[in-house]
Amino acid sequence: MPDPHPSGGAPSVVGARPTPYLHVDAGVLAGNVAAMAALARSRRVALRPHAKTHKCLEVARLQVDAGAVGLTVATVSEAEVFAEGGFADLFVAYPLWVDAGRGARLRALREHASVTVGIDSLTGARALAAQVPGAAVLVEVDTGHHRTGVPPEEAGALAEAAARSGLEVRGVFTFPGHSYAPGVLEQVARQEEDGLRRAAASLDLHGLAPVVVSGGSTPTVAAGPEGDGITELRPGVYAFGDAQQWELGSTTPERLALCCVATVVARHPGRVVLDCGSKVLGADRAAWSTGHGRLLDHPDARITSLSEHHAVVEWDRSPAPEPGSRVRVVPNHVCNAVNLADELVVDDDTVWSVAARGANT
Amino acid sequence: MPDPHPSGGAPSVVGARPTPYLHVDAGVLAGNVAAMAALARSRRVALRPHAKTHKCLEVARLQVDAGAVGLTVATVSEAEVFAEGGFADLFVAYPLWVDAGRGARLRALREHASVTVGIDSLTGARALAAQVPGAAVLVEVDTGHHRTGVPPEEAGALAEAAARSGLEVRGVFTFPGHSYAPGVLEQVARQEEDGLRRAAASLDLHGLAPVVVSGGSTPTVAAGPEGDGITELRPGVYAFGDAQQWELGSTTPERLALCCVATVVARHPGRVVLDCGSKVLGADRAAWSTGHGRLLDHPDARITSLSEHHAVVEWDRSPAPEPGSRVRVVPNHVCNAVNLADELVVDDDTVWSVAARGANT
Repeated sequence: MPDPHPSGGAPSVVGARPTPYLHVDAGVLAGNVAAMAALARSRRVALRPHAKTHKCLEVARLQVDAGAVGLTVATVSEAEVFAEGGFADLFVAYPLWVDAGRGARLRALREHASVTVGIDSLTGARALAAQVPGAAVLVEVDTGHHRTGVPPEEAGALAEAAARSGLEVRGVFTFPGHSYAPGVLEQVARQEEDGLRRAAASLDLHGLAPVVVSGGSTPTVAAGPEGDGITELRPGVYAFGDAQQWELGSTTPERLALCCVATVVARHPGRVVLDCGSKVLGADRAAWSTGHGRLLDHPDARITSLSEHHAVVEWDRSPAPEPGSRVRVVPNHVCNAVNLADELVVDDDTVWSVAARGANT
Repeated sequence: MPDPHPSGGAPSVVGARPTPYLHVDAGVLAGNVAAMAALARSRRVALRPHAKTHKCLEVARLQVDAGAVGLTVATVSEAEVFAEGGFADLFVAYPLWVDAGRGARLRALREHASVTVGIDSLTGARALAAQVPGAAVLVEVDTGHHRTGVPPEEAGALAEAAARSGLEVRGVFTFPGHSYAPGVLEQVARQEEDGLRRAAASLDLHGLAPVVVSGGSTPTVAAGPEGDGITELRPGVYAFGDAQQWELGSTTPERLALCCVATVVARHPGRVVLDCGSKVLGADRAAWSTGHGRLLDHPDARITSLSEHHAVVEWDRSPAPEPGSRVRVVPNHVCNAVNLADELVVDDDTVWSVAARGANT
């Protein structure tokens, strides 16, 4: 594979397409997809990538062709897009509130795909069971992120009650989202592994041996978990990577498959201004981020402020580019950047639709 | 007008539409539009609302029907949407980099609408003049936000050079974006007024008396400027309002016209989780914000963390709502929330298309 980021700028940077736009390097993407598939095989665990990152049928097809057992999604509407696109094994990793409308949609989905959904309360499980009798579920476990999920030791009791309400309990899952911070990775990976093991034991105690024990964010997959008993990994961001993962050390610049191609529109003393703002990059900025995204070819530059259509870049160490120049900007959080775009431009000659853009319900 | 926010929840909160979705209260919106139009009339200045906030033809029509002289937009693609929608007087408040492609689009636009664009450099002005001879421009002035724009005293020299390159220089504009912070409003409004006055004087010195002297963010319009010489105001957020303006004191809860209707999906000790995350609210959070958005009917609650599809709400003082309940969430920054939605639901019975969603080029 040729160097995807030759010095002096890739073809995307000099193209004539109106900026800003999101560009995907197909070679880098293919490498990321293959590497994660190989890692899952080497650990003898199933890979079920989270499609919320890319929302593209084409990327999902690459992942499944490389050996993924199915896809993870966040919403019923994402599941609808991917089922329509021919993906037959979907997990909605979310404790859905299933009212009559969502119930009807889930029943319709089940005619085209195997659909498993998350539960984290008996109230939610009963609402689901009333609408979709026999629905397959995984119990969500809180392994330290403190968002949704029950404590590991309570997983068995919820699983048993859910089974009594008529659901098919297939196992447990967790999302260790607190891994997205510096210096905590080993600890979070251990918490994830330990919490899943305890949750699985809790199901065993209630006579419901788990078939699926599912974990894995992009950072913790890299750090582990190597633990016995984990059967499935659900990383998402790894396909494209982003500035957060770059700054956390979970990826490297040459493995970043997506960037925003932007134009320098102004140059003032000490700063340049790009035409990419929060309406194309997203406004995500973690407390530990060094800026509002990173410039792929200028690692010393910092995006010090971001408006809807302006990125202000402090440009101290290297000669600042001329107005009209194009640069490649890596979004802080690629999942939110992709969700702002209707399409991704691939190798500057192909367009992939962001088919599940805005699919929030 | 009836109380738009009766205690116990408006009809939107109990509707059956799948959550999360953005809801507009048409009565509140109409009140905001009328109030700003009246304020501009009372000051004898033109009102040119920024359409990037709503991106909706229907809202733009309300604004123009109430007396707005035209619209402000941020990009050529926004201008294309509103020109196609019948709006004939557009100002692109941005120092566009006009290459051949953007030049062709601007020339096509000029057949349907009067289009003025911003300039903040001679390089940019010459690129524009080469593509669109005779284009009408305003010189952007930096009155303290330090994003784009030239210092006020340099406006005249740039204006004269731009005129020599064949552009029609109509005046000056500024955006006092540094008004979006607590405790600075009076100072920023004075900077804006003073900077515009000095920029206008600079044009006078160069023999180019400005026809347009344009300013105004939503916060500074409320605080002023009352100064002589300002001919036009360009507020955007005022149409809907948002949690940032609420927390800054530039609006009040009863004047918030847009919210996200969300469902409680989980309740754990000390917190509830809503199904609205950064993919519907946007990830904007200023350093001074108290959280990632506000709950309209529960001002004591705080959204302490936000993922793509989860809002974690600390709920200390009042009884937390049951899973399945619906609540109204006010985004921190309404412009970015609207840009994530394909449509806005109006009074729970009408749908407006976000016609310029994603129009970033």
